[in-house]
Amino acid sequence: MSIDRRLRLALFGSGRIGQVHARNVAAHPDLELALIADPFIDGARRLAAATGARAVESADEVFAEPGLDGVIIGSPTSTHVGLIEQAVRHGIAALCEKPIDLDLDTALACRERISGTSVPIMLGFNRRFDPAFASVQARVAAGEVGRLEQLTIISRDPAPAPRDYIAGSGGIFRDMTIHDLDMARFFVPDITEVTAVGTNVFSSDIEELGDYDSAVVTLRGRGGEIVTITNSRHCAFGYDQRLEAFGADGALAAGNVTPTTVRKYGAAGTEAAEAYQPFFLERYAQAYQSELAAFATSIRTGAPCSPSFDDGVAALILANAATESAATGRSVAVQPVTAGRD
Amino acid sequence: MSIDRRLRLALFGSGRIGQVHARNVAAHPDLELALIADPFIDGARRLAAATGARAVESADEVFAEPGLDGVIIGSPTSTHVGLIEQAVRHGIAALCEKPIDLDLDTALACRERISGTSVPIMLGFNRRFDPAFASVQARVAAGEVGRLEQLTIISRDPAPAPRDYIAGSGGIFRDMTIHDLDMARFFVPDITEVTAVGTNVFSSDIEELGDYDSAVVTLRGRGGEIVTITNSRHCAFGYDQRLEAFGADGALAAGNVTPTTVRKYGAAGTEAAEAYQPFFLERYAQAYQSELAAFATSIRTGAPCSPSFDDGVAALILANAATESAATGRSVAVQPVTAGRD
Amino acid sequence: MSIDRRLRLALFGSGRIGQVHARNVAAHPDLELALIADPFIDGARRLAAATGARAVESADEVFAEPGLDGVIIGSPTSTHVGLIEQAVRHGIAALCEKPIDLDLDTALACRERISGTSVPIMLGFNRRFDPAFASVQARVAAGEVGRLEQLTIISRDPAPAPRDYIAGSGGIFRDMTIHDLDMARFFVPDITEVTAVGTNVFSSDIEELGDYDSAVVTLRGRGGEIVTITNSRHCAFGYDQRLEAFGADGALAAGNVTPTTVRKYGAAGTEAAEAYQPFFLERYAQAYQSELAAFATSIRTGAPCSPSFDDGVAALILANAATESAATGRSVAVQPVTAGRD
Amino acid sequence: MSIDRRLRLALFGSGRIGQVHARNVAAHPDLELALIADPFIDGARRLAAATGARAVESADEVFAEPGLDGVIIGSPTSTHVGLIEQAVRHGIAALCEKPIDLDLDTALACRERISGTSVPIMLGFNRRFDPAFASVQARVAAGEVGRLEQLTIISRDPAPAPRDYIAGSGGIFRDMTIHDLDMARFFVPDITEVTAVGTNVFSSDIEELGDYDSAVVTLRGRGGEIVTITNSRHCAFGYDQRLEAFGADGALAAGNVTPTTVRKYGAAGTEAAEAYQPFFLERYAQAYQSELAAFATSIRTGAPCSPSFDDGVAALILANAATESAATGRSVAVQPVTAGRD
Repeated sequence: MSIDRRLRLALFGSGRIGQVHARNVAAHPDLELALIADPFIDGARRLAAATGARAVESADEVFAEPGLDGVIIGSPTSTHVGLIEQAVRHGIAALCEKPIDLDLDTALACRERISGTSVPIMLGFNRRFDPAFASVQARVAAGEVGRLEQLTIISRDPAPAPRDYIAGSGGIFRDMTIHDLDMARFFVPDITEVTAVGTNVFSSDIEELGDYDSAVVTLRGRGGEIVTITNSRHCAFGYDQRLEAFGADGALAAGNVTPTTVRKYGAAGTEAAEAYQPFFLERYAQAYQSELAAFATSIRTGAPCSPSFDDGVAALILANAATESAATGRSVAVQPVTAGRD
Repeated sequence: MSIDRRLRLALFGSGRIGQVHARNVAAHPDLELALIADPFIDGARRLAAATGARAVESADEVFAEPGLDGVIIGSPTSTHVGLIEQAVRHGIAALCEKPIDLDLDTALACRERISGTSVPIMLGFNRRFDPAFASVQARVAAGEVGRLEQLTIISRDPAPAPRDYIAGSGGIFRDMTIHDLDMARFFVPDITEVTAVGTNVFSSDIEELGDYDSAVVTLRGRGGEIVTITNSRHCAFGYDQRLEAFGADGALAAGNVTPTTVRKYGAAGTEAAEAYQPFFLERYAQAYQSELAAFATSIRTGAPCSPSFDDGVAALILANAATESAATGRSVAVQPVTAGRD
Repeated sequence: MSIDRRLRLALFGSGRIGQVHARNVAAHPDLELALIADPFIDGARRLAAATGARAVESADEVFAEPGLDGVIIGSPTSTHVGLIEQAVRHGIAALCEKPIDLDLDTALACRERISGTSVPIMLGFNRRFDPAFASVQARVAAGEVGRLEQLTIISRDPAPAPRDYIAGSGGIFRDMTIHDLDMARFFVPDITEVTAVGTNVFSSDIEELGDYDSAVVTLRGRGGEIVTITNSRHCAFGYDQRLEAFGADGALAAGNVTPTTVRKYGAAGTEAAEAYQPFFLERYAQAYQSELAAFATSIRTGAPCSPSFDDGVAALILANAATESAATGRSVAVQPVTAGRD
Repeated sequence: MSIDRRLRLALFGSGRIGQVHARNVAAHPDLELALIADPFIDGARRLAAATGARAVESADEVFAEPGLDGVIIGSPTSTHVGLIEQAVRHGIAALCEKPIDLDLDTALACRERISGTSVPIMLGFNRRFDPAFASVQARVAAGEVGRLEQLTIISRDPAPAPRDYIAGSGGIFRDMTIHDLDMARFFVPDITEVTAVGTNVFSSDIEELGDYDSAVVTLRGRGGEIVTITNSRHCAFGYDQRLEAFGADGALAAGNVTPTTVRKYGAAGTEAAEAYQPFFLERYAQAYQSELAAFATSIRTGAPCSPSFDDGVAALILANAATESAATGRSVAVQPVTAGRD
């Protein structure tokens, strides 16, 4: 492909994740951040000032802008489906943060409405772009550990989100585990059964909301693979994000990340590493950049987006199944997303 | 306690595990291996010659021996209950390899028959004596990571046992996972629910026997703790035996063991450690010695054995529940072993 | 400080290190790369095109440019002193790659001529800005390991430079070790004695040039500290750059850097990390960015540069002493650079 | 070889190292500890009682004992030469702790007097039998890292010996470094030059005795290899015993040893290992056992002892050269021990 001009992008949402995207677009030599839209216009203006963009209040102003190549949807979940559909109607590519929607039917209806389009739509499962996870996946795909048999994912947030956030989050499986469910599908795309156990072990707030603070999900792949996801809403030693891919011929593991390689040796302990990266902004800083680069490549080349809209649907189906399994104490069978779009 | 004389022990079984025990008794300065009993008398004789013991064919010859302090039961599983009961009748302490029996009712009937005895009976869950696992458990018990919330156990054998062995093993949960179930109870004694998933991913032999070659078991503790056990009947990089205890204030992890600390640095990779200890004889060599020492201490002091007979029953109950859960796709509630003996 | 405008910089040299600096300046939001000067004008033009700068052939064109805030000197060593002096005369700050000059007298004469100036001059000892080394130094300075007693530096290049380069390099101590000598002074500024051993163990080319392919230098600090530097001109496993600071109360170590945390487990070995970063462009990518930021801060605030011109002189004195010690088999006493400028 | 009877050994010295040997002999199935000799007869008696041996006061009583196969010399250094010569005269093998003597001429005179004997004499450089160091040496010898170019040894005691001990120790190079000098020769037998730097950085006691508390020794091998030894008489994090063998094709490193693999993860730091083994009794427990087994093998088979008497002489020559180099600031050339015995 020849890069004869910079791609012009707009951003929805000036919150925490919007700021990550805005700065990454601004720093990318081949991308231009034209607009930042947020009804909370002060936030949009501040971020626009810092990144050379223009602040607008409404989505309509964005889609009225001539010459836009893509939008990044970092606004609240309830806006995702509408913005995706508007983007498709305008023939503008979209990178949408997860989840598509908290409601599967809404997501499936959207899928129906945008079926047949060739407009690139990418789901923001940023972890697929983490250099370590991506490297493990690529090496597994290249056969380095033989046939994949077991995948162990440990994923713990440093501290619970605020009570209000959790109240509207759709529950741990749709809000937090969904990233891990997509990671599971990155390695084992075809999941047939979901078994989940949720518990409350440290937060009465979360318990009162009818949600779990800790959970374990076991997935069965069509080939007999087993994926285990261990989640906690808190972690005293930082953002705990690890996985191990176990195959017939060996294993590959991706560990947590420290700022530097420095180790301490003292009377109380030896070889002590630094604290881990505190949360996703630090741990996945490079992943967000690579995700953006992949989105730009899809816009320029028309290559299919990965993760795709259907990956977003599939993760939501698994999250719903986990929610049901945890509630009923039964394993829940799942079907692959039927074709019709990809 | 004063050690005014060496304890006299007898051993049932001259197979692989019997040989471990025989050598450990022979090497222990305060213990004497008086007898080795095995109907396969040639094996008993060879082992007796190497350890200074006397070989006999039958259990009756053992229990007729005057001045015996204890027996170690390393003979086939089907003999365990009978030998335990004989030992109790003769007032002789017993260290019995796991499991008590493949049949829970048989074990419970034995429990009934020996109730009220003060004869020390210890179950051979050797892993509790592994220096690393024991250290993690002690540090957790001392509160070093705060309240325990999640326990992650990964346990993989280097290669499947022979088909005949597996055919009579009682299935992966009763044969292999039972060690991990006891390890779970070492940290979380009171388990209330078992959820298990079994798959066949590499061995058609095992599948034909109606057993699983891979499994994941999730346990719920009374306090909301979650324990995850990941099993495989094979592992390309050796005997994979790890655990992580995650608590409110941090975590402690016990890793695999290499023969030495040597690391290799080359063009193809860096910091490469040696292959892990190949199997339990090597990995748990020290654990077997510490287990024997604990048995001897119980004999001398009358201190309760840990792991106890009831720990053996409890692990069997969990193994049965896992078997049922994997078959039905439902979580299985379990009750603690009712009191009456401990 | 208030950043009311971007600093305008010029770059001398469009070679490998010049390209690093050009890209870092271009990517820095508060800096502007105005000019790139190189008599090899094609190189300058290519780099200028990629970074939005203007290419010129001569230094005079640079110093004739109005409104320049600083120059980065990445041209051949023989040009360093002249360009530093020109910069000082024009009141323009300079960031100069090491060494000041291969000849100490030339460097000292330059020092004399620029004495009294307040123009910021910074020496390009990039490793002081490596996050791991900088962290160790800061933690040592904060007293975390008590009084520093021993510093162990291991520094190996992946492969020898071309024969022509080595022929004009001034020898291993002035060309390669000089970075480690500055690192030694980063921790122990006041070195009183240098003892060096050089050998030829793999390269007949280097031996024919009268240089060493491998060397060990031992430095004595005024407080009795010992610094050990181990060098090799080749390393099969990449760019080997490590240090350990050992103090009365413990130690801190900075290890090599892998692209990701991924580890491989197989029959042939376990816990194998990836290959290390291949060379300085990768390993010290962040260090070069931090160095540039520190230079910009000195320009804006007038804060003294660190490493300073005198740090460049001091490292050269140590390199000369090492050269002499290796040739004579005697420890060489060194004096601190006399004051007069800093 | 056929083991038709146990070897009968006697031990000189009931101090710390004597106790190690006594317990190892007592625990070895093919060895019998017949006598323990110490003029401090109470110590000998206590140790004899614990190990089934008989206590005697004098060497004469030992050599009058019929049927002795070997002696272990763990008595004070000043007695070593005399006991070795007595052993040779009686045709009894000897395992002698290092050093042969603090005075090289005394050692060489002994060498002269025992020349021509075929009685096995082994020097107690126990570290050659450390599983990690032995593994690195064997893998280097097998060519795994190509031609060996650099060997880096770090060796620090946890705390200084008492002042009285140090006063009679012969100085850090003859007392402490001598182990590392032998380790150097284990990898690079033919050393041609010694360069040493000693400093006083923490102990005024040691400085008053005219000795160093810290030192670095650089050795040059005949093939251009460089060995670096870094010593300290104290170490806050335990007994620091490491080495790295760097060759043309890669490197092998042996690290410190922790009691278990357990790692701690907390807010203050992650992956923290346990404290290292505190001192040589723990760190080299297995090395002493393997050393004893090698000694027994030499007695039974007549195979040459390694390390040999001449290895003891060679290490002493290097220690003397280091002492001279540190005092004069000059590299000291050394000659290989002339042949005549090995």
